[in-house]
Amino acid sequence: MNSFFSVKDIDNLDKIVEESLELKKNPRSYLKLGEGKMLGLVFLNPSLRTRMSTQKAALNLGMDVIVMNMAQDGWALETQDGVIMNGNTVEHIREAAAVMGQYCDIIGLRSFPSLKDREEDYNEDLFNKFKKYCQVPLISLESATRHPLQSLTDLITIKETWTGNSFQKPNVLLAWAPHIRSLPQAVPNSFAEWMCRAQQEDMLNFKIAQPKGYELSTEFTQEAEISYDLEEAIKNVDYIYVKNWSSYEDYGRVYSIDQDWMLDQNKLKTTRSAKVMHCLPVRRDLVIASDILDSESSIVIQQAGNRVWAAQAVLKRILESINK
Amino acid sequence: MNSFFSVKDIDNLDKIVEESLELKKNPRSYLKLGEGKMLGLVFLNPSLRTRMSTQKAALNLGMDVIVMNMAQDGWALETQDGVIMNGNTVEHIREAAAVMGQYCDIIGLRSFPSLKDREEDYNEDLFNKFKKYCQVPLISLESATRHPLQSLTDLITIKETWTGNSFQKPNVLLAWAPHIRSLPQAVPNSFAEWMCRAQQEDMLNFKIAQPKGYELSTEFTQEAEISYDLEEAIKNVDYIYVKNWSSYEDYGRVYSIDQDWMLDQNKLKTTRSAKVMHCLPVRRDLVIASDILDSESSIVIQQAGNRVWAAQAVLKRILESINK
Amino acid sequence: MNSFFSVKDIDNLDKIVEESLELKKNPRSYLKLGEGKMLGLVFLNPSLRTRMSTQKAALNLGMDVIVMNMAQDGWALETQDGVIMNGNTVEHIREAAAVMGQYCDIIGLRSFPSLKDREEDYNEDLFNKFKKYCQVPLISLESATRHPLQSLTDLITIKETWTGNSFQKPNVLLAWAPHIRSLPQAVPNSFAEWMCRAQQEDMLNFKIAQPKGYELSTEFTQEAEISYDLEEAIKNVDYIYVKNWSSYEDYGRVYSIDQDWMLDQNKLKTTRSAKVMHCLPVRRDLVIASDILDSESSIVIQQAGNRVWAAQAVLKRILESINK
Repeated sequence: MNSFFSVKDIDNLDKIVEESLELKKNPRSYLKLGEGKMLGLVFLNPSLRTRMSTQKAALNLGMDVIVMNMAQDGWALETQDGVIMNGNTVEHIREAAAVMGQYCDIIGLRSFPSLKDREEDYNEDLFNKFKKYCQVPLISLESATRHPLQSLTDLITIKETWTGNSFQKPNVLLAWAPHIRSLPQAVPNSFAEWMCRAQQEDMLNFKIAQPKGYELSTEFTQEAEISYDLEEAIKNVDYIYVKNWSSYEDYGRVYSIDQDWMLDQNKLKTTRSAKVMHCLPVRRDLVIASDILDSESSIVIQQAGNRVWAAQAVLKRILESINK
Repeated sequence: MNSFFSVKDIDNLDKIVEESLELKKNPRSYLKLGEGKMLGLVFLNPSLRTRMSTQKAALNLGMDVIVMNMAQDGWALETQDGVIMNGNTVEHIREAAAVMGQYCDIIGLRSFPSLKDREEDYNEDLFNKFKKYCQVPLISLESATRHPLQSLTDLITIKETWTGNSFQKPNVLLAWAPHIRSLPQAVPNSFAEWMCRAQQEDMLNFKIAQPKGYELSTEFTQEAEISYDLEEAIKNVDYIYVKNWSSYEDYGRVYSIDQDWMLDQNKLKTTRSAKVMHCLPVRRDLVIASDILDSESSIVIQQAGNRVWAAQAVLKRILESINK
Repeated sequence: MNSFFSVKDIDNLDKIVEESLELKKNPRSYLKLGEGKMLGLVFLNPSLRTRMSTQKAALNLGMDVIVMNMAQDGWALETQDGVIMNGNTVEHIREAAAVMGQYCDIIGLRSFPSLKDREEDYNEDLFNKFKKYCQVPLISLESATRHPLQSLTDLITIKETWTGNSFQKPNVLLAWAPHIRSLPQAVPNSFAEWMCRAQQEDMLNFKIAQPKGYELSTEFTQEAEISYDLEEAIKNVDYIYVKNWSSYEDYGRVYSIDQDWMLDQNKLKTTRSAKVMHCLPVRRDLVIASDILDSESSIVIQQAGNRVWAAQAVLKRILESINK
């Protein structure tokens, strides 16, 4: 693996999930692999889980880590070409990325979308430019349209917690939930992309429940069944992945904060004792009812813990391809 | 030791002081103890000494360290239960603490009090919730009402610098000093709590000098003698611990900025060549006169240096109990 | 070497350049040298290259590193003596530096000038005080008037890229370029100081091109030839070091943003295929034309990469003098 941006960078989902769970059992079994190798973690936006879990994953592989918070430690980057830089941006991404590539063997980059210019966001303009100019393997720590380390984690967690027999496949539902802010589509896009692929690989069944107007790009949801009725969709579900997102069609718009879509116990009890997932941070009693998060149904903490093993499996593969 | 929050977590003061001074002589003698163990340092408030000394202590024990500045690197935490999270807080402490506990073997947490709601502050609401939800050993890097790593350091420094013979016990005075801001009671509370205990263990004599209205909670000062006359109290003193704090009674209030209480050479010369201590940062010529800080009487730098050995002794004990 | 502040700390330029290039070939050949030694990197101002390259250099030498961003992680420092600290500064540099010296074996300090009080800036008041009070070897990560790690890097890069035979010496030009902000003289001062010394050591020929009014202090430019005509100065040049700076004479003033001084292809083609250098960050199409930065003429990325080896050579020398 030379970079990690989407599910397309993985040839066999089951294999990397197994590899991640193996690392979970023996976290320091590849302590020599990353020796003398530098991971740079570049944050253009805040981060808790990604920041901590990726550092831990790298240290488990014996790597050195430098964290760079561009906004606080550095300055604003220019991403557009052909601009006379006489404004607020201090350095062009062409130089910034290239320089960081001089210091690092692998870079992880977090960058949220503007939610203003859909074309620019969905072109993954910033991520692609950074990748082009840094000239070292680049890992997405969440980009404008995807959060692949989260999605790999999600698949690991489903595999790890699924108690059905090998002839049964879990039914997985991505369920929109309300929020007060306009949020990116990166997590649901990425989740849909990974779950569609997992469905193709015969690992699970996937569908989506959401209010009208919140349709994600079909680039990610593909042939997935979409239901506009949460109560209907939730029946016979084994995993509910709850997440808010803003409109893709009317880009970045929030139509309404519809509390009917918050996951609560009344809805949950109509499922097949479904496990509840969320990428976190989650706003309690707005997105998911507190009593669910505090119950055995919630696996959000285990899920967050698994971020380490997803990151470690990805770093391990990239290190192996560097060392070749 | 499973957590470190107050003097109650230490069974024998003299023993941990000796252990700390032993580590000062041989800083890297337990370099294998922390191998593969992760310390997370979580700052909800600024820090210099605590941040640097605790990192150094952990590295001396072979641990890995991740620093998380919640406000800059992350976001605002909700600490209240039963709140619909549709405001400025992005993540609940229940999730944030639990997730960090997934990544860390030991966590250090710094969090200042609000100085608005005394009950909430003195219940140590935030620290206790974090401890409950993170589910790994938690070390206070200063909480709402205590700063135990500082107090252990203070005791180490007194022991290290005391030149009296073994039949003599040093007279230690905690002396209030003026400031322009409303400051927490954490450092003086904690110092009083530790000195009262050291007095019970026959290590020293302890008393307090302060203007009326600044009485600390008797939970911390216990039976300690309180003087309202600094010039009287200072006589025959071997150590003066200078510190400002705001009112406990009229919670958070600053009655006056009374420069008569600033420690200066005139007052100092009436002591038994007392050594002057302060937790730092100290505002010169407001809290303590510059010429004292620049003189041999001041041991504030040595005291700050000892923060490493206090932190290392505490981390060592927790690691030993984890490894059991 | 006991500290690193200016070219005066180096006795033989060619030797440290060779040493740096040797480290570039074998980055981890001194991995034991820094074992158990702590480097503190203290930033009073933002940094990307210095932050990352110096961390990497220290890790290559087996050191531990703590990064302290004073403004975000800590608080404002008082640098003046005799001040009653009842304002915005929370800690005096006397204490802050002394305390950091307790935790670190070597400290790196970045601090920009005020550009208001020339005497204070050019006295290197802050750097000198920090050096005096921290009592451990101090490395400038850019001070008010100098950026010696950058200048050493620049010399390394010239040596590394020079393709002339041993009887030829490269002609090096420092060329002022426009900017919209008032920038320090630290980089050009330092570059001039190092190039004048390199000229004395018979390594190269050095001159300066700039508009009238931007004369640097002769403390740094010494006998260097100054041209006020860029087109004339640029002929027969092998290296053009482009950089903006504000006025030294009318301290901190920007007379004009004269785009005639921007380096573009028309000017560049009159040189002897000169290589273009800049310390970065560079504002494209304001300071240097984009098409130059994107061409083979630009060596700014290689130059930035060399920051690691300059820092590592300096750290290595200081560690060797500590270990003696």
